[in-house]
Amino acid sequence: MRVVCAPTLILISVTICCSLTEKLSNGSSPNIIIMLMDDMGWGDLGVLGQPSKETPNLDAMAAQGILLTNFYTANPLCSPSRAALLTGRLPVRNGFYTTNAHARNAYTPQEIVGGISKDEILLPEMLKKNGYISKIVGKWHLGHRPQYLPLEHGFDEWFGSPNCHFGPYNSSVRPNIPVYNNSEMIGRYFEDFKIDLRTGESNLTRMYLMEGLDFIRRQTEAKQPFFLYWAADATHSPVYASKSFLGKSQRGRYGDAVMELDYSVGQILSLLQKLGIEKNTFVFFTSDNGAALMSGPQESGSNGPFLCGKETTFEGGMREPAIAWWPGHIKGGAVSLQPANVMDLFTTSLALAGISPPDDRTLDGLDLTPVLLNGSHQLDNRPIFFYRGNEMMAVRLGQYKAHYWTWSNSLEELKEGINFCPGQEVPGVTTHDQKEHTLQPLIFHLGRDPGEKYPLSVLSKEYEEVLRSVSAVVQQHQKTLVPGMPQLNMCDLAVMNWSPPGCEKLGKCLKPPTSAPWKCNWPH
Amino acid sequence: MRVVCAPTLILISVTICCSLTEKLSNGSSPNIIIMLMDDMGWGDLGVLGQPSKETPNLDAMAAQGILLTNFYTANPLCSPSRAALLTGRLPVRNGFYTTNAHARNAYTPQEIVGGISKDEILLPEMLKKNGYISKIVGKWHLGHRPQYLPLEHGFDEWFGSPNCHFGPYNSSVRPNIPVYNNSEMIGRYFEDFKIDLRTGESNLTRMYLMEGLDFIRRQTEAKQPFFLYWAADATHSPVYASKSFLGKSQRGRYGDAVMELDYSVGQILSLLQKLGIEKNTFVFFTSDNGAALMSGPQESGSNGPFLCGKETTFEGGMREPAIAWWPGHIKGGAVSLQPANVMDLFTTSLALAGISPPDDRTLDGLDLTPVLLNGSHQLDNRPIFFYRGNEMMAVRLGQYKAHYWTWSNSLEELKEGINFCPGQEVPGVTTHDQKEHTLQPLIFHLGRDPGEKYPLSVLSKEYEEVLRSVSAVVQQHQKTLVPGMPQLNMCDLAVMNWSPPGCEKLGKCLKPPTSAPWKCNWPH
Repeated sequence: MRVVCAPTLILISVTICCSLTEKLSNGSSPNIIIMLMDDMGWGDLGVLGQPSKETPNLDAMAAQGILLTNFYTANPLCSPSRAALLTGRLPVRNGFYTTNAHARNAYTPQEIVGGISKDEILLPEMLKKNGYISKIVGKWHLGHRPQYLPLEHGFDEWFGSPNCHFGPYNSSVRPNIPVYNNSEMIGRYFEDFKIDLRTGESNLTRMYLMEGLDFIRRQTEAKQPFFLYWAADATHSPVYASKSFLGKSQRGRYGDAVMELDYSVGQILSLLQKLGIEKNTFVFFTSDNGAALMSGPQESGSNGPFLCGKETTFEGGMREPAIAWWPGHIKGGAVSLQPANVMDLFTTSLALAGISPPDDRTLDGLDLTPVLLNGSHQLDNRPIFFYRGNEMMAVRLGQYKAHYWTWSNSLEELKEGINFCPGQEVPGVTTHDQKEHTLQPLIFHLGRDPGEKYPLSVLSKEYEEVLRSVSAVVQQHQKTLVPGMPQLNMCDLAVMNWSPPGCEKLGKCLKPPTSAPWKCNWPH
Repeated sequence: MRVVCAPTLILISVTICCSLTEKLSNGSSPNIIIMLMDDMGWGDLGVLGQPSKETPNLDAMAAQGILLTNFYTANPLCSPSRAALLTGRLPVRNGFYTTNAHARNAYTPQEIVGGISKDEILLPEMLKKNGYISKIVGKWHLGHRPQYLPLEHGFDEWFGSPNCHFGPYNSSVRPNIPVYNNSEMIGRYFEDFKIDLRTGESNLTRMYLMEGLDFIRRQTEAKQPFFLYWAADATHSPVYASKSFLGKSQRGRYGDAVMELDYSVGQILSLLQKLGIEKNTFVFFTSDNGAALMSGPQESGSNGPFLCGKETTFEGGMREPAIAWWPGHIKGGAVSLQPANVMDLFTTSLALAGISPPDDRTLDGLDLTPVLLNGSHQLDNRPIFFYRGNEMMAVRLGQYKAHYWTWSNSLEELKEGINFCPGQEVPGVTTHDQKEHTLQPLIFHLGRDPGEKYPLSVLSKEYEEVLRSVSAVVQQHQKTLVPGMPQLNMCDLAVMNWSPPGCEKLGKCLKPPTSAPWKCNWPH
């Protein structure tokens, strides 16, 4: 395993190897379930302070497991975040970024030409080495062209969709997004899979739950170790819930969606217990980025006490709810302050499965098993990097976060009503131009100031000391960084979901226009 | 009992009488402990989303009791809030307000002439009727002149101080604040009771804990029902903690203070259990107003996802952490969304003690026992009023909050660096002039929008319907309101703590200047 090689981290790397070896000799291969929510914010869980406290199942999961309150995504946007989780590598390494402009968030709308490279090794590919069967349920978002789909990258099964559930579209101009069962589409959103934009009604979360439960049951019967990547997207705008949940929340439609997801998590954990496999199944719950505050109160969640939301590298954009659950292995009711991130799930999953991580590339994820199983503090000083596109905007080290660049979005966008920090404004911090602080980063102490409102005085001894240690980490990171080939630069209407595999059988193939690629415009 | 008499509330009043009668016939008189924190914010508890999760005892208290997430103070400032708790009446009724200027927060600095009127009936006076012995530990803040002190208003014992622990002062200009044991001073802050402003070290919380534990032990031995009002002030600036807690928190000095208070709460609950009286002791934990955000990150807490803080009538100023604990009577791990407030503690305590509330005056507090003991929803539609001085700024009804006036503070103060909403700015809401909306109040749905960022459209049907029901409640309230004589209008340097009772014995009497009263200036 290779990590950013500050001297302390070399030691960590060695320790991890040993703990990994122990696991290998132990020979156990627990099932692994990663539940990844879409645009759900840190503050959306009762246990993390949502005032209506409407997530009894997640709160119980935390009470039976370990809550990580300093857990991060790798990017404040969905596609790069998901690519990072599945590769254990920062988007700037795995190619899920753009160089079309500086520090721009990019993702995979259906006009995107790129996707996850064959050179990247995804978690299910690795898990296969130890006999795991893997399924993704829900949103993929690592590219929708045939070579980029989940079954081409290690997953054995898929029920869900390659893109966001936007629409409905006029199919002569833009195809509706397909829903796949394994390698073939089985219909399209708004045509075959209903989302009622007026009422918010859709059965998709229910379907995703059924698919997940069915997979767990089948693998358990087959005595097959499994990896379930449960990536429901009901909390992404347009937000939806099944009829029986609509109107049930104190929080409006968004809360209804959360309640159904919470219920689904409860059903999944409950099935594990019914099947008697809970002590052999590691479950992790988190989200892909902060709440999408720009979508307004009906269509977005809460980032609790944190600054701004999705699209930004402030805490509200990247700190995520996170719970690890594994009865008999993880002590219930624990809270960990370990700075950790979605890329650690790659490395941790491999450690749990007794598989050595790839040794031919830099991994950004660490093995969290010493933290989760033994409450170790040996990783406390590992850095967390906050990227926006091709730029390292900020880094966290211990309790400190240093911003080298700040940006919310442009004044032009703000004037159009696009606001990533509604109701929040910290002068010099939530800047509306890309503000460079590389010579003198803004440094916050996140323990005292989780809302990033009070930069340390640059004249203080504390600032000086922190800057020294952070600078060393940043220099090492930037010196050794080899950016991957950017996959999110080119767009083309011809590559949209006109004729996904399986469309013939359904009579749902559409005629693509002539190819006319352009450099995608990523405004923020 | 008289409450604001909307038709639905008359029904409630009747129901309360019956539940009260049941209690009376039952004959039990549990001990009552109210723990009132100073400037602690809603978001300072782990169970309410503080990211460092450093309140294990309070979190356990919530797990064993009921957490009220919609609990309010009666005023965003300490003195009026405390007066409301102990009288069950809004400050505008009990006199804890000013008419010197419109909508100004006023309190009891040591130059204040007024204090709690003899015409007001305080909770310990009422509890005496059923044989309760009452002690206040900590901050009083209802007037420091002899006639206003706790032992003149129903308390049997007192250890603590009449004012805030500001200082140190040059005693020829301004006396240091005295600390009392019962009816006599036993020293002064900074002279005899150390608070190290540089390190933040002080043993006061430890003393308050010892005093509380000792009182509980003594009353238990004497088989005497008791009321303990435990009003520690370590989280009020200047924030302090005992040596063993300093530097222990992730949150700096403020977090250290919270940790010691949390520890103390744990010690008190633990003693009740050791003494075997936990099933006969009702304990309530809350705070006097929102976190004092203007004091900066080292000296103030968190209001979680809510808007602004202390001094304001936004949620951050008045929504409080609140836990009721009573093993064997209150079901553990429950969460109540009941809109409730500190004045309810007056009426609820009387109901628990089997004492009829005063019938010669309007009370604003309701009996919460049906909610706390039986999970009743009959009080869901009771209004919560948000006053600033002599003005009703806002009212909450159900999930809706209507602002009739908005104000944070003046631009002049803001320019001087006094900011009640640091990092937050909601255009048209966090206004810097006193903005009147009485003809068309700003209405928020606090479930969907707890941060008060998105006023409902005045053109919506929802707005129209809410306005109709809120207007009826407000009209009724204002029509029947008889303001009390304002106690916080006059100031005089001669009334300061120059020669408190007991000063002779200590040789600590100081010579007051000639009386020269003036109308106190309340800038916000």
